[in-house]
Amino acid sequence: MALIVHKYGGTSMGSTERIRNVAKRVAKWARAGHQMVVVPSAMSGETNRLLGLAKDLSPAVQTPAMLRELDMIASTGEQVSVGLLALALQSEGMEAVSYSGWQVPVRTDSSYTKARIQSIDDARVRADLAAGRVVIITGFQGIDDEGHITTLGRGGSDTSAVAVAAAMKADECLIYTDVDGVYTTDPRIVPEAKRLETISFEEMLEMASLGSKVLQIRSVEFAGKYRVPLRVLSSFTAWDIDIEEEANSGTLITFEEDEKMEQAVVSGIAFNRDEAKVTVVGVPDKPGIAFQILGPVAEANIDVDVILQNVSHGGRTDFSFTVHRNDYQRTLDLLRSQVVPALGAADVAGDPKICKVSIVGIGMRSHVGVASKMFRCLSEEGINIQMITTSEIKTSVVIDEKYMELAVRALHKAFDLDQASA
Amino acid sequence: MALIVHKYGGTSMGSTERIRNVAKRVAKWARAGHQMVVVPSAMSGETNRLLGLAKDLSPAVQTPAMLRELDMIASTGEQVSVGLLALALQSEGMEAVSYSGWQVPVRTDSSYTKARIQSIDDARVRADLAAGRVVIITGFQGIDDEGHITTLGRGGSDTSAVAVAAAMKADECLIYTDVDGVYTTDPRIVPEAKRLETISFEEMLEMASLGSKVLQIRSVEFAGKYRVPLRVLSSFTAWDIDIEEEANSGTLITFEEDEKMEQAVVSGIAFNRDEAKVTVVGVPDKPGIAFQILGPVAEANIDVDVILQNVSHGGRTDFSFTVHRNDYQRTLDLLRSQVVPALGAADVAGDPKICKVSIVGIGMRSHVGVASKMFRCLSEEGINIQMITTSEIKTSVVIDEKYMELAVRALHKAFDLDQASA
Repeated sequence: MALIVHKYGGTSMGSTERIRNVAKRVAKWARAGHQMVVVPSAMSGETNRLLGLAKDLSPAVQTPAMLRELDMIASTGEQVSVGLLALALQSEGMEAVSYSGWQVPVRTDSSYTKARIQSIDDARVRADLAAGRVVIITGFQGIDDEGHITTLGRGGSDTSAVAVAAAMKADECLIYTDVDGVYTTDPRIVPEAKRLETISFEEMLEMASLGSKVLQIRSVEFAGKYRVPLRVLSSFTAWDIDIEEEANSGTLITFEEDEKMEQAVVSGIAFNRDEAKVTVVGVPDKPGIAFQILGPVAEANIDVDVILQNVSHGGRTDFSFTVHRNDYQRTLDLLRSQVVPALGAADVAGDPKICKVSIVGIGMRSHVGVASKMFRCLSEEGINIQMITTSEIKTSVVIDEKYMELAVRALHKAFDLDQASA
Repeated sequence: MALIVHKYGGTSMGSTERIRNVAKRVAKWARAGHQMVVVPSAMSGETNRLLGLAKDLSPAVQTPAMLRELDMIASTGEQVSVGLLALALQSEGMEAVSYSGWQVPVRTDSSYTKARIQSIDDARVRADLAAGRVVIITGFQGIDDEGHITTLGRGGSDTSAVAVAAAMKADECLIYTDVDGVYTTDPRIVPEAKRLETISFEEMLEMASLGSKVLQIRSVEFAGKYRVPLRVLSSFTAWDIDIEEEANSGTLITFEEDEKMEQAVVSGIAFNRDEAKVTVVGVPDKPGIAFQILGPVAEANIDVDVILQNVSHGGRTDFSFTVHRNDYQRTLDLLRSQVVPALGAADVAGDPKICKVSIVGIGMRSHVGVASKMFRCLSEEGINIQMITTSEIKTSVVIDEKYMELAVRALHKAFDLDQASA
């Protein structure tokens, strides 16, 4: 008997028919002798509907008091889901009880719409499990010290599920979603992309942050911090498939580097086309220029990703970085009006039509030549590299957006991912 | 400066446009210097939508565990409303905060879907009022001793508003609804029906229970118990009408019999066509027959309204009562299978096509001849009276359903209600 947490996304909860299937699947696990905690999302479309109503009344929600009301409204989507799933389980003849975040309670800080979980009291849930009940807990939300409802932000239900699994010391947290696992890259771009049976926690972090939107990145961080075994698997299999088969499907996110992982130097190819590049040209090369350039950018609440400072020539250097494409024009304006005059730089250049492609693999730690293999591959395809940045387990390049698919396909093949075992 | 409670029904909250109007109205009252507490219902249609989803998954919701989940689901409708109204008020430049029942807290017993309010803690709300905030509280719901969400049943938001007003010792509780007050009878049947400026609490109780569905009857009982001045008024006036005019519109439910009420012997004509009549014929006239007949009926959870036992002839009597029309066939079956054989009665007769018409007036207490005037009026119209029942402030007759409109119109005229001052 194990303690298992299931998390179901909004698509899986999208209709009463689908909720009934979720209930049958959960019942199958409970009848197999497992203690079950389930964290469902709001029915698909519901959170958008609620936020649409709110936006109608308050187009510019900004004050904490307004954000508080937004959480009050948005949190109801999951409350409906947990009640419906409990009813469906009861109709299947199971004992089940649902709780809102505040009833558990799931304690968070007071950062409305993007709160962070501080602690989860497991006493109530444990008592229900001991009494033979399936416990269903709202994702996405909690309660702060003042008794106000908070939400964790978009995708927060993944984080809730992992946090509950950590608090309960669950044996495994299964994230049911509309993909059947983590792939070597996006199969829409590389049809030969293969599902990974396992991926290390660190690789998953890089894959998630680089745009493989399988899991919310905070949930992966949480899983890493508390070492929660996490599995991503499909919610579209028939509910009555063999439970052993189901328990081994999808992709397991692990904390140990097993033999297999040693062999695969690169686990996957990630990419991101939401970025834009800006370069401050001809900056006098003095200490403190990074701060002088990026300080005003940070103050304007613009997130910066890749940062590069070239070697200087004749006492002048170029300083490049990437920002989200939505912030591109604002960044250019800011640099031109404030930074260039203050620094005495020559000019600002930019390119919004770039993308970032990364190879990710925990095996890169102990293998040399991985990056150069990447560069050679891109060179053979005639793709010019504009920026390069590396970390222990990934190498990213910024290239012209139009080469993205070509680059991903070429790298996928070059690192033998087309042959990766499923 | 007064402490005022406003209650808005589902129609008033039916769209963001309407919610914006509610916000403007509330803001007007707050800017006039009043401390404002608002209790809105769920947006119209929302509770039905939620219960429809629940019914889909659990067609036969019956166990307490299932009813608990139903409350979990249904309570979200009001939570969305309070959040939206708070946002709308904030957009009007007002300070506002919303609370769910459990946050106040509004404490109830654990009778899911029909809970009763036990106490309301006013500390949190009072602190917000003192800080200059408009406080918005979910109607219809509370929290039990175990921390479970409960709901008060359909129309429970009226009761919530009155209970909040009682707990806060509010100066007045204004129920905004889709009618502009309490009328002498239903204007759809008698176009000459007049709005009453005031009505006594006892009369309102009789009018409400007899089918003038302006206010939920429990809210009137609550208002009576705690002597909360209650006003029913229209939510369809322009939000910016003069506040004094608005404060004196609608119908005030009072606790003192003023001069005007002394003059009006009958305040209104109520009616109800949801009932059916059954008669156990030829019952041996012995002590205990009422219990022997109605005991099994009560056990079958069938509500009985009018009860009549005729004088006996030759040791046998007839025993008649009315039930809700939906319970008619079940009642007949029960009487035939259990009661008639056990009692040695002759037979059971019934008529589902009846209605009940009542004259209601606190003045009846001190005026003789009111009932006989009613009977004469009906006789002049050729309407046969099947049953009669009286209380201190009302006289009801059961008649053939087809005469209902005729009877109501004739009585409205006979008691000079066509001339009642507005």
